[in-house]
Amino acid sequence: MSPTLAARIEALTPQLTAWRRDFHRHPEPGWCEFRTAATVAAILDGLGWTVAAGAEVVDAPARMGLPDDATLSAAFERARQSGVSPKWLDRLAGGLTGVVATLDSGRPGPTLAIRVDLDALPIAESQAASHCPAAEGFASCHAGWMHACGHDGHTAIGLGVATLLAERRDQLVGRVKLIFQPAEEGVRGAAALAEAGVVDDVDRFVAVHLGLGCPGGTVLCGCDGFLATSKLDIRFDGRSAHAGGQPEIGRNALLAAAFAVTGLHSIAPHSAGASRLNVGRLRAGTARNAIADRAELEIETRGATTAIDDYMRERAAQIIHGAALAQGVTADVVCVGRAVECASSPDWVARIASTIAGLPGIEQVLAHDRSPRGSEDATTLMARVQARGGWATYMIVGSDLPAGHHQPAFDIDESCLPVAVRALAEVALAPGP
Amino acid sequence: MSPTLAARIEALTPQLTAWRRDFHRHPEPGWCEFRTAATVAAILDGLGWTVAAGAEVVDAPARMGLPDDATLSAAFERARQSGVSPKWLDRLAGGLTGVVATLDSGRPGPTLAIRVDLDALPIAESQAASHCPAAEGFASCHAGWMHACGHDGHTAIGLGVATLLAERRDQLVGRVKLIFQPAEEGVRGAAALAEAGVVDDVDRFVAVHLGLGCPGGTVLCGCDGFLATSKLDIRFDGRSAHAGGQPEIGRNALLAAAFAVTGLHSIAPHSAGASRLNVGRLRAGTARNAIADRAELEIETRGATTAIDDYMRERAAQIIHGAALAQGVTADVVCVGRAVECASSPDWVARIASTIAGLPGIEQVLAHDRSPRGSEDATTLMARVQARGGWATYMIVGSDLPAGHHQPAFDIDESCLPVAVRALAEVALAPGP
Amino acid sequence: MSPTLAARIEALTPQLTAWRRDFHRHPEPGWCEFRTAATVAAILDGLGWTVAAGAEVVDAPARMGLPDDATLSAAFERARQSGVSPKWLDRLAGGLTGVVATLDSGRPGPTLAIRVDLDALPIAESQAASHCPAAEGFASCHAGWMHACGHDGHTAIGLGVATLLAERRDQLVGRVKLIFQPAEEGVRGAAALAEAGVVDDVDRFVAVHLGLGCPGGTVLCGCDGFLATSKLDIRFDGRSAHAGGQPEIGRNALLAAAFAVTGLHSIAPHSAGASRLNVGRLRAGTARNAIADRAELEIETRGATTAIDDYMRERAAQIIHGAALAQGVTADVVCVGRAVECASSPDWVARIASTIAGLPGIEQVLAHDRSPRGSEDATTLMARVQARGGWATYMIVGSDLPAGHHQPAFDIDESCLPVAVRALAEVALAPGP
Amino acid sequence: MSPTLAARIEALTPQLTAWRRDFHRHPEPGWCEFRTAATVAAILDGLGWTVAAGAEVVDAPARMGLPDDATLSAAFERARQSGVSPKWLDRLAGGLTGVVATLDSGRPGPTLAIRVDLDALPIAESQAASHCPAAEGFASCHAGWMHACGHDGHTAIGLGVATLLAERRDQLVGRVKLIFQPAEEGVRGAAALAEAGVVDDVDRFVAVHLGLGCPGGTVLCGCDGFLATSKLDIRFDGRSAHAGGQPEIGRNALLAAAFAVTGLHSIAPHSAGASRLNVGRLRAGTARNAIADRAELEIETRGATTAIDDYMRERAAQIIHGAALAQGVTADVVCVGRAVECASSPDWVARIASTIAGLPGIEQVLAHDRSPRGSEDATTLMARVQARGGWATYMIVGSDLPAGHHQPAFDIDESCLPVAVRALAEVALAPGP
Repeated sequence: MSPTLAARIEALTPQLTAWRRDFHRHPEPGWCEFRTAATVAAILDGLGWTVAAGAEVVDAPARMGLPDDATLSAAFERARQSGVSPKWLDRLAGGLTGVVATLDSGRPGPTLAIRVDLDALPIAESQAASHCPAAEGFASCHAGWMHACGHDGHTAIGLGVATLLAERRDQLVGRVKLIFQPAEEGVRGAAALAEAGVVDDVDRFVAVHLGLGCPGGTVLCGCDGFLATSKLDIRFDGRSAHAGGQPEIGRNALLAAAFAVTGLHSIAPHSAGASRLNVGRLRAGTARNAIADRAELEIETRGATTAIDDYMRERAAQIIHGAALAQGVTADVVCVGRAVECASSPDWVARIASTIAGLPGIEQVLAHDRSPRGSEDATTLMARVQARGGWATYMIVGSDLPAGHHQPAFDIDESCLPVAVRALAEVALAPGP
Repeated sequence: MSPTLAARIEALTPQLTAWRRDFHRHPEPGWCEFRTAATVAAILDGLGWTVAAGAEVVDAPARMGLPDDATLSAAFERARQSGVSPKWLDRLAGGLTGVVATLDSGRPGPTLAIRVDLDALPIAESQAASHCPAAEGFASCHAGWMHACGHDGHTAIGLGVATLLAERRDQLVGRVKLIFQPAEEGVRGAAALAEAGVVDDVDRFVAVHLGLGCPGGTVLCGCDGFLATSKLDIRFDGRSAHAGGQPEIGRNALLAAAFAVTGLHSIAPHSAGASRLNVGRLRAGTARNAIADRAELEIETRGATTAIDDYMRERAAQIIHGAALAQGVTADVVCVGRAVECASSPDWVARIASTIAGLPGIEQVLAHDRSPRGSEDATTLMARVQARGGWATYMIVGSDLPAGHHQPAFDIDESCLPVAVRALAEVALAPGP
Repeated sequence: MSPTLAARIEALTPQLTAWRRDFHRHPEPGWCEFRTAATVAAILDGLGWTVAAGAEVVDAPARMGLPDDATLSAAFERARQSGVSPKWLDRLAGGLTGVVATLDSGRPGPTLAIRVDLDALPIAESQAASHCPAAEGFASCHAGWMHACGHDGHTAIGLGVATLLAERRDQLVGRVKLIFQPAEEGVRGAAALAEAGVVDDVDRFVAVHLGLGCPGGTVLCGCDGFLATSKLDIRFDGRSAHAGGQPEIGRNALLAAAFAVTGLHSIAPHSAGASRLNVGRLRAGTARNAIADRAELEIETRGATTAIDDYMRERAAQIIHGAALAQGVTADVVCVGRAVECASSPDWVARIASTIAGLPGIEQVLAHDRSPRGSEDATTLMARVQARGGWATYMIVGSDLPAGHHQPAFDIDESCLPVAVRALAEVALAPGP
Repeated sequence: MSPTLAARIEALTPQLTAWRRDFHRHPEPGWCEFRTAATVAAILDGLGWTVAAGAEVVDAPARMGLPDDATLSAAFERARQSGVSPKWLDRLAGGLTGVVATLDSGRPGPTLAIRVDLDALPIAESQAASHCPAAEGFASCHAGWMHACGHDGHTAIGLGVATLLAERRDQLVGRVKLIFQPAEEGVRGAAALAEAGVVDDVDRFVAVHLGLGCPGGTVLCGCDGFLATSKLDIRFDGRSAHAGGQPEIGRNALLAAAFAVTGLHSIAPHSAGASRLNVGRLRAGTARNAIADRAELEIETRGATTAIDDYMRERAAQIIHGAALAQGVTADVVCVGRAVECASSPDWVARIASTIAGLPGIEQVLAHDRSPRGSEDATTLMARVQARGGWATYMIVGSDLPAGHHQPAFDIDESCLPVAVRALAEVALAPGP
């Protein structure tokens, strides 16, 4: 335990809050985190970390669910006008909004990576007086967008850890990498970082998230409750025709979509574990008296394991193409997000648990937990680390929440920020094999 | 043949064009024809016709497919600011946009009714130089709305007939009623006029339409090619749930809609004649990972006879309620438009055909024709007249068209306006039993 | 009018009845009419007609809906044991049960073909005392099979005409062909005769049927009320699996069939006229707890025209293959019957109508009628004749029926037999261009 | 360890084999185990057990999946002719084929119940020389029926235990009940015994099964791998119509069934655990050209818990009734089998495990195991015992099998019979609280 570290964190806490509130006020969509990423890069650069950003750390073709060019350009321009450093901003152009910073101790030792995420959600933030960001003036200034999943806090935590470790470089061994990932929402971003190789030299990996069902004072060191998932956008294109006049020449995209939906929901369950499929959104047709020539669906599959999710996604594609064939329309299936199964490395979870036990603000340390917590694409980075022999885990730092994740009144308890920074710094500073 | 009438119509033609172009420039949605109807009422009033408008001629509860209050209010306010006579405008408030004018000869004789329609379509008008309204400066000034079915011309024809007959009241017997119907598009308006009794004293009825597949110079006196039809708006309301977390508590409105669509398309055909069903539009769900709690469909049924359309509509409702029951959601079915079968009265068709044969601009006079021409709710007025022993027909005055009905480049050949006015005036002035 | 002919027919009537009752007592399935066809061939041979049978007149590969070998063999053996002439029977082996007899006048003139049919139905005949065949001892001796559509009468008529014309060969010009078609039920047989070329030299063609909605005393000379139709047998083959244990490895043929059924019923109607589709029979799966690896469907399509039936059949195949693709099963589609549209030749209908008007027992002669009367594959022969420039028609000789066609209590009024024989003989004997 | 018991079992083993082979040779369907049950009752009676049979132990209305009367009568008559004791046979008439025997020690102590089952399966037994029953002459003499799940062995084990305990009554405390259950296949029988109260006085309950994935030498004392399940027979009744002539008057039962199938497979999974649904069999319609007026489905649902199976069954019923409503047909849903979840009592499992450890022929004793093993309605008896405060478990005595359960070549290794008898006798004789 380091009394000095405790004092330093106490001093740093107002800065953590300030960072978090600045990010909260300026929420940005996935692949559009231009202001956030540029701000982060500039701070890390200033702290003496070696900063890589943009194409160095993001494999452009591997990005999923990229917004259209007009959206990217508008977001980029907005960020430029916000006054962030052009030096970093320009590297991010076109949606290359990842940042990876490295601190090399110069001493032999493992490479530790800590991953946080940057993006916000298309949710209109609560304006209620009971909602702290509204009451204290840092609510979203971008209508319809909001940090409703705590990524503003995660980013601030990353900067806090960067600050502490820069000051304690001489206590480190090996290297530390801080990974600021874009587009976690929709599980769209991790694959592009993985493909760029940012974790290929990593021996120890930890992703961190606030809340997620853990109360303040609790830290879960090995969350394994994420389902593998795939996010698919489907489009059927047919041929319109007057429904009364010449119905036989139409190729009914809406009808194909309806058959696809009923088919998709009929995929047999898998004996190896839970599977899920949802068609969350369907838009088809324009006029009552015209056979619809276009239908668009947004679906997702999930599985207790990657193999189960693969089974669901492949069966889904088969059903979609069958429905298209039956109705004489074309089907286009695009994967706009994907995350694999989650299995934290037991030895690493145990190490972290023993390292952080008893730290101030941490009343309960949990090891593994498989309770379902949705999906997360940090798992893609974890799996890549583990596939190369490294250890990886997903850590949740508890926070008491006034409203659930993805709700307009979501907010974090900012007192969890220094707790998380301290825990991660201790892990980084702990000697290990 | 009346040379005087011919000369008068020649003199009136610039006015017909001016009226038509004014209406064309100010297209209004069904039940929102505030400016159009008030303008018409004021002109008729000035010509000496006895004018009824608003609640006198529109049975409010029988209106189908009424826009919401905000839309009605905004359209009304826009009309008010356009400077039309408040005297007539105020009677139309809230979407009571029908006008019926009567001219009584004071002499015994039958009551003849001529029906035209007032409303426009939600189509963005062509801005091409080849499109006459754009080239000559009378294209729609209301973005996204357009007279793309010739109702501007119909309204002008009604005013032209009103002008001629007012000048020739002493040549008339019986009475003439001019019916300016709102909300023909979507077959939403005629029932409200019928319920208000506007044709209950009518012995001879003629509805008039330009184009519809007839070339310039041709007049079809008895178009019987309209299918009976019903327009239904369907809404399924279920219960949302996280698709990964607790799928079993959801009540999937999107899935209900998909089963409804596949069911609706499976209604057995009818041995008595053609039937049609189309689900033209489907909107369901909002987020990929949430079970959809709302789905909305716009459908239509058609039948060669009213009985067949009734069969289709009733089977459709049954299927919708079955789909709702199966998925544990509620279904709401609203009829937003309806028209019955069409059978022009043979004696009346023959009379009109002989009356107009050989008039200037009329090269070909056709009697009955059953070629399919979509649906029309004038049939509801026709059926009401016929049920009370009167004669009714649907007349098409041919016009060469640069683009089809309901297309952005639709336009009428204005030379058909005086032809139609002359034909209808001759019918009104012809002595008959 | 030929008094001699009338007297001859009166004398022949007991024989007509005896033939009909013999055939009625021994009903045979389509392609199994071994006893019937061999009997017919022997009689025709004895009358001096030139008889062709078996492979000469039946194109084996073009047969549709052929029973399996065991069924064919058993039926053949049964016929052999009934004592029919082996000379003719042996030519029919394997289901080549067509007979065509020709009488050549040796004088120039057109070739007239008269077509009757031979097969019975899988219906258990009524044993009621009110059912004449039961009361008079000539009910079916083959359990579960019955002449419930009058083909026994048609065959007797054919023999009656053969008898008369053989006696009056010197009054004939040109040639007469009598076509005894197998497997009309299920519209399976005509194509094989057409492919064998039996009507390729025919100038005038008439098919004859008793009853079909026409009362005794009425003859309809040009029945055009048959829909084009296709009969399809569908089989889905998947992979079984324990539904509780490993559902994901199954390939569910029953589910594919269910999706196919819902899809098949959703084919859009055709603007050119009536269409029909029915899935009349579905058998799938064996055990409650096993995913079904086999599903079999029997379906039919119909259309007011051959083109519409083609549209339906092709869309049906598309939907079946789409359903198979979606469920990962294979689909096999076999056409087991087919008939084209029906359009009797107007000049020929008029000629026949004038020839038979006023004959004894014929009170009413109708020309064309399009009232729906199911489907008939004589249309395939008719179309072949017409395609080569000949005339063809479908004649119905009315008969008062105690029960409808295809009912256990169906029976013909035998008094219609001499009427039909006389009418056809007159047509054959009438001089024509 | 009781050397005397070991010797007695060795002496009894030929009898165990003889009993098993006799039952194997005479397999009887569920509710038709007339010969088997009467034989068992007579033997137990002879051994001095107090025997109850028929209506005393079977609640007639609670029987599920009862065969029709003709089947019951024929099976009963066959049993009578086999020469079994009428004394016991008559009590079983009409399908009351349960037998419960009680041995009261006269000393205070708990009541132990051991449950075995009697019925066979509709499987044609292998005739291969490699199949022991065929080679040694005790294969099924009832064509199409076979003991393919080892119930013949279970029944023999019950008689073996009865023999030993009758000889050792003075070593017992409390009471022992031997329950011979009919109709386990299809989970149809246990509820009727439970409703008759046969376990309402039971403190300790053990059901026994051979094989089920456990190799010879292994005993699993607490199998918890059974899913809750419901077996439903569904019938849709509509109205037939000629599919070409008057499709609109039909009420299509086949189409309703198809929509039901697609709907049934779309039931959302349950977050609390695995769920299953299968439509294993579907029969609908008779003729290709008739709209089907009847469709019959055999389905099953399963769930990791009874609550999940309830959810599946209730959703299934909802979907079936929705499909019926949509198509205007009636639906009849009959539950023909049902079993609840399985949770062996831990203390009881531990007790049994320690009692039987080290017995001859038992190399491995397993406590609890949740691997999936299908469904079993002994769970219904277990739950009833547990609900009243008793302990219950499901024991599997391993057996090396040449072919899987429910396969034509299934056979048990008869050497497991004395192992099972010994284990159960030891449990009965072990002193316990």
